[in-house]
Amino acid sequence: MSNSYPLISVNGVIGQQISPLDRGFAYGDGLFETCRLTRGVIPLWALHKARLRAGCERLRIPLDEALLEHYLAALLSAAALAEGIFKVTVTRGVGGRGYGLPAEVFPTYCLALYDTAINLAHQQGVVLRVCQQRLARNASLAGIKHLNRLEQILARTEWQDTAIVDGLLMDKNGHFIESTSSNLFIVRKGQLLTPNLSRCGVAGIMRQLITDVLAPGAGITTEIGSVTLSDLQSADEVFICNAVNGIWPVVEIRSEANPMIFSQGNITAALQQALRAYFSGKVI
Amino acid sequence: MSNSYPLISVNGVIGQQISPLDRGFAYGDGLFETCRLTRGVIPLWALHKARLRAGCERLRIPLDEALLEHYLAALLSAAALAEGIFKVTVTRGVGGRGYGLPAEVFPTYCLALYDTAINLAHQQGVVLRVCQQRLARNASLAGIKHLNRLEQILARTEWQDTAIVDGLLMDKNGHFIESTSSNLFIVRKGQLLTPNLSRCGVAGIMRQLITDVLAPGAGITTEIGSVTLSDLQSADEVFICNAVNGIWPVVEIRSEANPMIFSQGNITAALQQALRAYFSGKVI
Repeated sequence: MSNSYPLISVNGVIGQQISPLDRGFAYGDGLFETCRLTRGVIPLWALHKARLRAGCERLRIPLDEALLEHYLAALLSAAALAEGIFKVTVTRGVGGRGYGLPAEVFPTYCLALYDTAINLAHQQGVVLRVCQQRLARNASLAGIKHLNRLEQILARTEWQDTAIVDGLLMDKNGHFIESTSSNLFIVRKGQLLTPNLSRCGVAGIMRQLITDVLAPGAGITTEIGSVTLSDLQSADEVFICNAVNGIWPVVEIRSEANPMIFSQGNITAALQQALRAYFSGKVI
Repeated sequence: MSNSYPLISVNGVIGQQISPLDRGFAYGDGLFETCRLTRGVIPLWALHKARLRAGCERLRIPLDEALLEHYLAALLSAAALAEGIFKVTVTRGVGGRGYGLPAEVFPTYCLALYDTAINLAHQQGVVLRVCQQRLARNASLAGIKHLNRLEQILARTEWQDTAIVDGLLMDKNGHFIESTSSNLFIVRKGQLLTPNLSRCGVAGIMRQLITDVLAPGAGITTEIGSVTLSDLQSADEVFICNAVNGIWPVVEIRSEANPMIFSQGNITAALQQALRAYFSGKVI
């Protein structure tokens, strides 16, 4: 194949553009999923689809899953890409001026395949920083992966040092919630603690896989609660995760205070191993 | 002319579409202005442009004002529309995957002309409601008219009754901030009070014209502060305003409590009259 990437289809048509009247463009009125493609399939697609469905229900966007599956199959077939990243954006489609929902909604399905390689070096450990930017709290938008991402963009402008891989975001109360593109876990006394996302943050697919499948399978329990600076400082291990990159051990967190240094630990390594086994089992 | 509206140009090309890789579509990474066009000109354009400039500075989008003016002049010339609405959307342009800013940014300028008539009936008085949806507080996004508008969209889904023209939004502390598409003023003892927008809300052009020009010109002082339910309940007059619709007296606000009823008052009428005079003076 000699495709140029990203290979993109809009409503099933490769090369199609977006209407300037699309509410995704006008208001960020939609949702997206970023998925790992490996061995030609998306092993976590069922979980991504479930989150997308939940997001569409929250925003009242009438998702047509069969149509989405059709577009996905067609794009995968056109690309014949084995390893990479799949991104789907679903918006409320074309609308008039003003925030009121269109009388009839025809969602826009924008699917993109990237031939991006996974960063294996980061699986050995990454350096993070603590961002100044805070996440605003709004339960009606928390958890879902919507298109209103200016907080993450502003946070990402705070550093240029390429040694720093990602930035941690707190809410208004100084509780750590996530990084700009991953969820956060800390390990203490052999157990996991990950932030409560009921008021802000994105409930990640890899986070879900860890709490529901990988950690229980390894005999590790997970607590969902508040994560403060002192929780971080006293953590035995820290890692971040997302559906594309998997699990990245955190070796250092830089902030205005003294940097926090973490050793790479057994629990994180065990979860990385469980994830590799899970992926191997998923795709035969 | 026999244009079909909206007449839209993207980067100066009428009929052009938006790239699926535009960061406006991907993340709501941009800003917009909605302006009243009257007698073929945009009388408040200087104020709109100043807010757009401030928003672009906040988001670090390199606005090219001369280019924008060029595109605007070309679109107005192509349309030859006398009365309507002009909307401009400026985004960070095309980018790769991820929140980090592109190495080189070429903003997208999407300009649209609508032949929408102004609703004169609403200048006699409108009915509002109080929304359940709250505005999250984030000082780094407050005031500017960015493209992350899911809160307004969710608020607007709360009612279908066409007698209700707009909904009022509170912040997390129960302070009234604005309606989904307008700013809020209350009149008490001959003076104006309008919400502080330092932590959420859009700093409207008409609000600015009122506080800086129209009210002082009529000898009316304006306080910027917190507006609570009891402030609303005890108000002598209430009005909302935006750059397109001007000033709309509020005659009723419905909520879970008893509806609040307001008489149309002299101060609101004086400001409406001052606005008409201002517009007449602006366009000869």
